[in-house]
Amino acid sequence: MPQKVVIVGAGPVGSLAALYAAVRGHDVEIYELRPDLRDPDTTPLNFAKSINLALSERGINSLRKTGLPNLAHAVLGETFPMHGRMIHVRKQGKYVREPQLYDARGKNLLAMDRAGLNKTLLDQLESMPNVKFFFNHKLVGVDFRKQLAWFERHTKSDDAARGTEIELRFDFMVGADGAHSAVRYHLMKFVPMSYQQEYIDKLWCQFHVPPTPDGGFRLPPNYLHIWPQDESMFIALPNLDKTFTATLFLTRTGFEQLDASGKVVEYFNQKFPGVVPDLITEDELRKQYSTNQHLPLITIKCTPYHFGSSGVIVGDAAHAMVPFYGQGMNTGLEDVRVLFEFLDKYPDDPATALNEYSRQRTPDAHTINDLALRNYHEMATDVKRPMYLLRKWIEETLDLYLPRAGWATQYSRVTFSNMRYSEVHQRAQRQARILNSVVGLSLATLVGTGFLFARSGAAQRAKMGILRSICWVARRAQGLFQG
Amino acid sequence: MPQKVVIVGAGPVGSLAALYAAVRGHDVEIYELRPDLRDPDTTPLNFAKSINLALSERGINSLRKTGLPNLAHAVLGETFPMHGRMIHVRKQGKYVREPQLYDARGKNLLAMDRAGLNKTLLDQLESMPNVKFFFNHKLVGVDFRKQLAWFERHTKSDDAARGTEIELRFDFMVGADGAHSAVRYHLMKFVPMSYQQEYIDKLWCQFHVPPTPDGGFRLPPNYLHIWPQDESMFIALPNLDKTFTATLFLTRTGFEQLDASGKVVEYFNQKFPGVVPDLITEDELRKQYSTNQHLPLITIKCTPYHFGSSGVIVGDAAHAMVPFYGQGMNTGLEDVRVLFEFLDKYPDDPATALNEYSRQRTPDAHTINDLALRNYHEMATDVKRPMYLLRKWIEETLDLYLPRAGWATQYSRVTFSNMRYSEVHQRAQRQARILNSVVGLSLATLVGTGFLFARSGAAQRAKMGILRSICWVARRAQGLFQG
Repeated sequence: MPQKVVIVGAGPVGSLAALYAAVRGHDVEIYELRPDLRDPDTTPLNFAKSINLALSERGINSLRKTGLPNLAHAVLGETFPMHGRMIHVRKQGKYVREPQLYDARGKNLLAMDRAGLNKTLLDQLESMPNVKFFFNHKLVGVDFRKQLAWFERHTKSDDAARGTEIELRFDFMVGADGAHSAVRYHLMKFVPMSYQQEYIDKLWCQFHVPPTPDGGFRLPPNYLHIWPQDESMFIALPNLDKTFTATLFLTRTGFEQLDASGKVVEYFNQKFPGVVPDLITEDELRKQYSTNQHLPLITIKCTPYHFGSSGVIVGDAAHAMVPFYGQGMNTGLEDVRVLFEFLDKYPDDPATALNEYSRQRTPDAHTINDLALRNYHEMATDVKRPMYLLRKWIEETLDLYLPRAGWATQYSRVTFSNMRYSEVHQRAQRQARILNSVVGLSLATLVGTGFLFARSGAAQRAKMGILRSICWVARRAQGLFQG
Repeated sequence: MPQKVVIVGAGPVGSLAALYAAVRGHDVEIYELRPDLRDPDTTPLNFAKSINLALSERGINSLRKTGLPNLAHAVLGETFPMHGRMIHVRKQGKYVREPQLYDARGKNLLAMDRAGLNKTLLDQLESMPNVKFFFNHKLVGVDFRKQLAWFERHTKSDDAARGTEIELRFDFMVGADGAHSAVRYHLMKFVPMSYQQEYIDKLWCQFHVPPTPDGGFRLPPNYLHIWPQDESMFIALPNLDKTFTATLFLTRTGFEQLDASGKVVEYFNQKFPGVVPDLITEDELRKQYSTNQHLPLITIKCTPYHFGSSGVIVGDAAHAMVPFYGQGMNTGLEDVRVLFEFLDKYPDDPATALNEYSRQRTPDAHTINDLALRNYHEMATDVKRPMYLLRKWIEETLDLYLPRAGWATQYSRVTFSNMRYSEVHQRAQRQARILNSVVGLSLATLVGTGFLFARSGAAQRAKMGILRSICWVARRAQGLFQG
């Protein structure tokens, strides 16, 4: 029996949820606070509000599973493959670029424009007869028990219209209205929800890198470029139009010091070699630094995600995360797939479906949330370290030569598989324990051999040097698989 | 210069904030979602929404500091003193009541009706020419930067009026609108706020204990009565009209099991001796158990509490806590005193005042929040234990005989002083370390003496018994000051 499904939020996650509901024959209404981003009269998209995206397996799989054969194709056509990271550092005073492939089998991340993905999904929805759009509508109240919602028409240019309120009845509401979700706010009044949010001590500021004068890319295009500087980091992702979208991550104090001193160019020259003036002129850097907002990064965990059979939150509304694993939107799209799999599994018992959804999805969302927080360290520090690369090499080599044993890096499982995040994390920990034991045994052998060799008569100073080297390796190797 | 101060929430904390602002000559407007609780047409107060209260020093001091000489008097006239706890337990199958005084110097807690306190404060505000009330007004939006707020007239009986919205400008907004604060929700859009809420695994259900047929109290009135049963607890506080307000605390599973079995009377007879039928008949108990809501308990921490110079949250909006330390409302009233002390200290710089307020108040609110969580264990378990009473006796005796040394129990400092909560906690920890050292030394002496005695020739079995006793005492004493 078709139901009235109300989706709040017409971003990529909300639009995908609307598609899943629409292909199941429900009457779908989508309410969105902002104007239609495809409307030419609309002021340009608030570009600064989202880093451009890295689409990966979970997102693509969720598009595929809509049952609309051309959708994933249409989306993939607008992406740009990134085979790996390109690390930009100074070594012995010399600027070097070091490529690191993401995957031993050559899998890619796909850079894409959030607005492009959103448009493709909205266009698809537009063609479906059982879908209605309500842009410029602000959610002002929900009663999940009576299944009533109140929206206010909310156009900024026309204040007289403010306050026109509509009441509507729904069977099922999906809140996909982002980190500051109004649906979640109202849901909390109906369900005892554990909730926590933190702002991490990093702000971000976006920069635009134009094409070269002859219309080419200013950097090798098939990489996610990283300038890792521990407490700060600069990254650049390619776009289809030969530009890059770049982002500076820095502590609040760091931004305040740059604001006070005005020495942005000097800071970039010191920390991020090859940026000024190769990618962006001094003037442009200064201008964009002061014009583009310095925005905070929030991380949110909560549970449960639903009330009875009448409402659920997905995407950032349920688990906003920091962007360092590139999984925020992929997790949101995956939410939709998992949610509708449960609804399909219990067609006559949506309350059980939602309950199962919350129960399964909570540990997965919490896990990727934690991994994303930790991944700042991997991106801004570890990628420079030989021991990190050694571990990556060991795991990838095992994966290539022992494919049946199921070795893979945590990164690869997060990004290139659909394994539950919580299971990815458990496997990574088990793998680390095994490898640590192997390393332990190897070290014991090495130390034993070294000791025999040292006893066997080499000069005293050589002996000590060798033993010291072994100890150094042992210490580093101990830390190798802790992450 | 008088400012326009908008208070959201006309509960005890909001009303007190309005008083503090009004005596400073500001134009005060109070907006409250609910109808005026003094209005005789108003449906009776949602009684089930608050446990009756234990007013203590911090609350009284905050009333005193308004500068209105009769206010504290008027409030204290409606309170009922509680000298201590009365513990109701079975010992060797026999029902016993054990009184435990709160304070070595005879200080009291004051039981009072939340509505009574609220009425007294509202009546006082009514008499001030610079205060206006707006009941039935729901906050629907705030712009803390432009200092604009939007309220909606919101009467349940008259749905046509729903949607009438007013816009108003303010200089300063105080959000005292409770645990589910709308002010906090809007504040979060302007300030990067760390926030966490949890529902603990205890629900509560309120019961009414009537007077005896000849109009007397059914229990000794000057006590907070406790039936401590570890995973559950029943308490009763006296009212001026010779009734008691009682509360059952129990886990969610516990309530569900009682709901399923219907054996409420049996449960009470097993766990809470002397309740049925002495305080409440079997029928009444069953009826009230099923009629009165089983409500969750939320604990909230966040920071900061303010934005710029234009807004701040106080009371439960800033730090809802579980009720086990009886400090929720006292902390809220103290917030108001501390807030206005900072505003008075920086008369020309409210931004600094609010910043200092957030900085100082955060650790204090977090501390009492944690202490309140831990105090369930003290109320439901520790009060039955001899070692708990021994520690209480040692600290109180030290306090009485060494008054200059400043010994006092943590409970006494929280309840009967105005010392900052964070300092109370630090002092309690220091005190525990000192007492632990003293106990350590005493034990060393005891063990030494015991050992010499045991060596000196008593029979072998006596020796071992004595040494075992010493070890037993030593183990218990080690745990004595850990709390």
